[in-house]
Amino acid sequence: MEASFAGRFAGLTPLLRPRSVAVLGASADRLRIGGRPIAYMLDRGFGGAILPVNPNRSEIQGLRCYASLVELPERPDVAIVAVAAERAVAAVEELAAAGVRGAIVLTAGFAETGAEGAAAQTRMREVARASGMRLLGPNCLGLFNAPIGYFPIFSASFEGGWPLPGRIGIASQSGAFGTHLFVVARDRGIGTPVCITTGNEADVTIADAIGWMAQDEGIDVIAAYAEGFRDGDVLRAALAAAKEARKPVVMMKVGRSALGQAAASSHTAAIAADDRVAEAVLAEYGVARAASTEELLDIAYLATRRLYPAASTLGVLTVSGGGGVLIADAAEANGIAMPPMPAAAQARLRALIPFCAPANPVDCTAQVFNDLATVGTFLEETVAGGYTTLLIFFSQVGGAPSIAPRLHDHLAALRARHPDVLMVLSILAPSPLVAQYEALGYAVFADPTRAVVAIGAVGRIGAAFAAPPPAPAPALPAFALPAEHLSEPAAKQLLRRVGIAVSAEEVCQTEAQAEAAARQIGWPVVMKIVSPDIAHKSEIGGVVTGITSPGDVVRTHALLLERAAARAPHARIDGILVARHHSGVELIMGLARDPVFGPVAMVGAGGIFAEIMDDVALRSCPFGADTAQAMIRSLRCFALLNGARGRERADLGALAMMLARLSALGAAAGPRLLAVDLNPVIASADEAVAVDAVIVLRE
Amino acid sequence: MEASFAGRFAGLTPLLRPRSVAVLGASADRLRIGGRPIAYMLDRGFGGAILPVNPNRSEIQGLRCYASLVELPERPDVAIVAVAAERAVAAVEELAAAGVRGAIVLTAGFAETGAEGAAAQTRMREVARASGMRLLGPNCLGLFNAPIGYFPIFSASFEGGWPLPGRIGIASQSGAFGTHLFVVARDRGIGTPVCITTGNEADVTIADAIGWMAQDEGIDVIAAYAEGFRDGDVLRAALAAAKEARKPVVMMKVGRSALGQAAASSHTAAIAADDRVAEAVLAEYGVARAASTEELLDIAYLATRRLYPAASTLGVLTVSGGGGVLIADAAEANGIAMPPMPAAAQARLRALIPFCAPANPVDCTAQVFNDLATVGTFLEETVAGGYTTLLIFFSQVGGAPSIAPRLHDHLAALRARHPDVLMVLSILAPSPLVAQYEALGYAVFADPTRAVVAIGAVGRIGAAFAAPPPAPAPALPAFALPAEHLSEPAAKQLLRRVGIAVSAEEVCQTEAQAEAAARQIGWPVVMKIVSPDIAHKSEIGGVVTGITSPGDVVRTHALLLERAAARAPHARIDGILVARHHSGVELIMGLARDPVFGPVAMVGAGGIFAEIMDDVALRSCPFGADTAQAMIRSLRCFALLNGARGRERADLGALAMMLARLSALGAAAGPRLLAVDLNPVIASADEAVAVDAVIVLRE
Repeated sequence: MEASFAGRFAGLTPLLRPRSVAVLGASADRLRIGGRPIAYMLDRGFGGAILPVNPNRSEIQGLRCYASLVELPERPDVAIVAVAAERAVAAVEELAAAGVRGAIVLTAGFAETGAEGAAAQTRMREVARASGMRLLGPNCLGLFNAPIGYFPIFSASFEGGWPLPGRIGIASQSGAFGTHLFVVARDRGIGTPVCITTGNEADVTIADAIGWMAQDEGIDVIAAYAEGFRDGDVLRAALAAAKEARKPVVMMKVGRSALGQAAASSHTAAIAADDRVAEAVLAEYGVARAASTEELLDIAYLATRRLYPAASTLGVLTVSGGGGVLIADAAEANGIAMPPMPAAAQARLRALIPFCAPANPVDCTAQVFNDLATVGTFLEETVAGGYTTLLIFFSQVGGAPSIAPRLHDHLAALRARHPDVLMVLSILAPSPLVAQYEALGYAVFADPTRAVVAIGAVGRIGAAFAAPPPAPAPALPAFALPAEHLSEPAAKQLLRRVGIAVSAEEVCQTEAQAEAAARQIGWPVVMKIVSPDIAHKSEIGGVVTGITSPGDVVRTHALLLERAAARAPHARIDGILVARHHSGVELIMGLARDPVFGPVAMVGAGGIFAEIMDDVALRSCPFGADTAQAMIRSLRCFALLNGARGRERADLGALAMMLARLSALGAAAGPRLLAVDLNPVIASADEAVAVDAVIVLRE
Repeated sequence: MEASFAGRFAGLTPLLRPRSVAVLGASADRLRIGGRPIAYMLDRGFGGAILPVNPNRSEIQGLRCYASLVELPERPDVAIVAVAAERAVAAVEELAAAGVRGAIVLTAGFAETGAEGAAAQTRMREVARASGMRLLGPNCLGLFNAPIGYFPIFSASFEGGWPLPGRIGIASQSGAFGTHLFVVARDRGIGTPVCITTGNEADVTIADAIGWMAQDEGIDVIAAYAEGFRDGDVLRAALAAAKEARKPVVMMKVGRSALGQAAASSHTAAIAADDRVAEAVLAEYGVARAASTEELLDIAYLATRRLYPAASTLGVLTVSGGGGVLIADAAEANGIAMPPMPAAAQARLRALIPFCAPANPVDCTAQVFNDLATVGTFLEETVAGGYTTLLIFFSQVGGAPSIAPRLHDHLAALRARHPDVLMVLSILAPSPLVAQYEALGYAVFADPTRAVVAIGAVGRIGAAFAAPPPAPAPALPAFALPAEHLSEPAAKQLLRRVGIAVSAEEVCQTEAQAEAAARQIGWPVVMKIVSPDIAHKSEIGGVVTGITSPGDVVRTHALLLERAAARAPHARIDGILVARHHSGVELIMGLARDPVFGPVAMVGAGGIFAEIMDDVALRSCPFGADTAQAMIRSLRCFALLNGARGRERADLGALAMMLARLSALGAAAGPRLLAVDLNPVIASADEAVAVDAVIVLRE
């Protein structure tokens, strides 16, 4: 991470861990916006100074109250702004002038209300930026840092209980959802010591919150809720910092659907970057993307075990055959490897329980509970199978009072002997028993499918942590974009200059010219009638493929003109196009520019199915050939490139290098390059070549 | 439903609702297999006679014990068999001889252990069938019918509490999973009065259990767990009975098994894996298929509200913009319509709270909780939007002690005024508050995504309940399958006979013959070299398309022979194939035979993408053109047929009729017809025609 970003994230510390807090608009009413933060901090024993500011009172909730900022006995590290909207900008200006390092603006009525509010919010940001003060909000719920009793937040969610000790930090653009996450976590016994909600993000964004947590020693896992991103570079820096610190980021990014996007833009006025581009950037940094709040917490919870195997394999021990089938189904759906047990171990288990299924899932059958020593043997044998992750499905048997106490000892011994194995228990048991197993180091899930989903996500996190740094993007020769529009030939020339193969073709007027063009282009060629009046060439026989000799060229030239004369007698004929005939698998490649993340390269299945099947891989530019190859391999149509149905394998190296060069072009060309469209790209065993190319520049 | 099936399902009543129960292998130990059922029935006050049978004791758990079946004072309705495996068959024989109507065989050691056990199990079935006694198991956990205190089951799961009163019946092949479901339900406060686990299914299958529950007045919703099905007809009858009774079946179907050996060799069969056939049959009857245990219970729970709108629309009222975005995403992913609020209502809401988002999702913002009358207005306005289903997302605010009590009155009034609207509350609240809302008639979900998934499933259930009966399959002219293998021409002739268009073609030896063939076939034609030595015709220019005149045929004939002579001089030439050239969208259609469900028809995307993109629709045979059209419309490639990318629309009627006729052929041809493969089928605005056809018969 660049030092500038490290400093930027560290700059949030006055907001998160201040020694003194002023409250502008402080209230004596413990249920009001200006009252709740004070009440909470008093209740939770915040150790620093709490300095209420309210011109109408001398005392608030037992604290001395000050009439204005200038009367404060000390300069606070941070100020909570809970004044009316019309006074909030002035308050921020005063704070900046006084040299306060952080402002938490709970006041609403800014960009979310229209142009006037947006202008006020811009002013707020400018004031804060000019003074170096970090500003959270406006229109945010606030934040908490529970271990130090710091609660500059007006949520009612603490009425049901305080945050539990733990290692998960919550970063959320939505206040309601940030506290929803906290409440669900608390009610499941999961600790979330820090929660930051960013509201309108005039200054501090969710990326800043993630970046700060990446540096914070109290946080191991970051659970984030986002509707959109404002600055691609800050997000990248934050995610890179988290990855460097081996802190998983689990994110629920909403706004995938059209209706969701519309709702999101009306909600926080977040920039609507293409969800798929955001998805690609998140994937690049190993972010685990969750589909629901529960899944978000499931993954974060499992991640707090801090075991991130580089190449995850799952061993399953089940007391129910049905559970084993269900788990195997779910594992396959989640891309989790479940290699079989070693043959010798299988033989030993079969000797112990003849009707067990010892492969993997290992079904020990309910019979083992007649003799719990047998359970111990099954457990040890399954771990000895060498899996990085163990899932034990004991369902209600694991929680039954007649069994659980004796089972506990076996599970405790197992956990102690194999601290490096990620162990997950799927049992139906009362909370105290669940807590006991968690204290041993197990992650406990009631639902086996949810356990598998979380295991899959943590496996991908481990793979991302372990991945070597990607190869750099290829170096390109110097090139210049023209001042004007790029014609098709000029576009192709530019592409060739940067090493992207583009098919050769020539419009010819005579047989001799066609013959010469074909010799120059190389065999085989395809020949086509060129006429503005013939839309569907093939319907009049106006396309001939597979031409491999000069004689064929001459014959075909005559044939095409003859057909045109007979079947489209009134068509104007511009000539005969001679083009290299490329045969192979059709793909598309392209570049586009995302408003948040900049140039993005894509590759997808070609032909008529491209759009319909939505078989596309995206990545922000630039990237190297290894990344390009991974993108191509991720396509469903990759099987066609890889020898499916008796085909020759395509030259994947050439294809990947083409895509990597395209990405380098996207990065190097600057913002004037709006789009590149290579459609189709033909991939064969010999080559990867763009048959058609369009480049769009900003005029 | 046929009367025979109604009688078959009613025949389970002695198993489910007996007046007297014998226990063979009764035990005094309340924790043993032969002891638990007696202990449970005593604890739960089973009203009928409990008759322990054990030659070694005169009293068991306070009941008189009998030495053998013949000594019983009465003939029991049902007997629980908990004796050792080697004595179980004899016990079943005795029961059958004594005229007992039902046997529940808990004993294990039968088909699950190998050939010998399977033989014993077959004997058991034969004995039962011959006497008309219904037999549950062997190797099953048993069942319970809680309202009558009837617990012929040895699960330990009751140690954590008894089943709650309610309207959901559980049918499960797996004993462990059946009780897993019961425990999860119980711990969520959901009542499951009946649970039937079917084990090895020698006689009673999960389909019987579903069929019985379809008739039982105590059950409104059937939650099923299945690994596979044994008899397609019984399953169909059971699902039809449930649908007729408007009882939703929610099913978790895990695992896969291979299709029949012969069918697997054809291309269609390879695509038509067994699980997809089952999926298609389940879909036919409106079964909601759940992906996890939690989802199964979520859907069943929501279904107990017994509101099944025919055309479901969802209105969302949210206190959090973020929650609205998340719900909109989830609704789109689940195919739920969320039409916008009427414009006038939007204007009224905006007048009330200027910064609200009144479209749908309706974001009332947290501000409404300052004045709860406003919440009431928002609630009423949203319902007045005319939605069949209302989802109210109040998260932790809905459970906060400072708000919840006043909110309750508004929600109670709303519920009372609109009893026909399916109302779902997503709140984080303590169980007693959740129970209060449930008592009002709300379904309550903590997680909004789970609520949306369940709403989507119940919407599909409602649509299935309301769907008109499908059109009958088309009548076919009489046809006969040959005794022998069907040659390609014979196969095409058979297809033409039943009204399926097959492309015309002819292998010709002379120019004149080719010309005549082309005239006969109709223009345009395609011509191809036919040679056993030329695998890739197009590589030597051996395929010419777009031939539209006799002169072209003659010229092309010469050209093809010339190219072959020049480029494949040693190839044997069998002639020149002249075929009608069809252009349009490529599809595949086929028939396969499923071992459980019989003939299955499929349609899918054609060309090289067929397998890779897995774009296929299946249905068991026969069906009418409306069903065929729905199948075609369900394909992702349907856009190509429907005018995407400037194409003409394909003749969907012809295509659907072709598929319907194929299905009628599958149903009429009998089990000798193993597979039909039409690949490709070309669909255009003018026609739907099979270009190649293979029919596989059992020799």
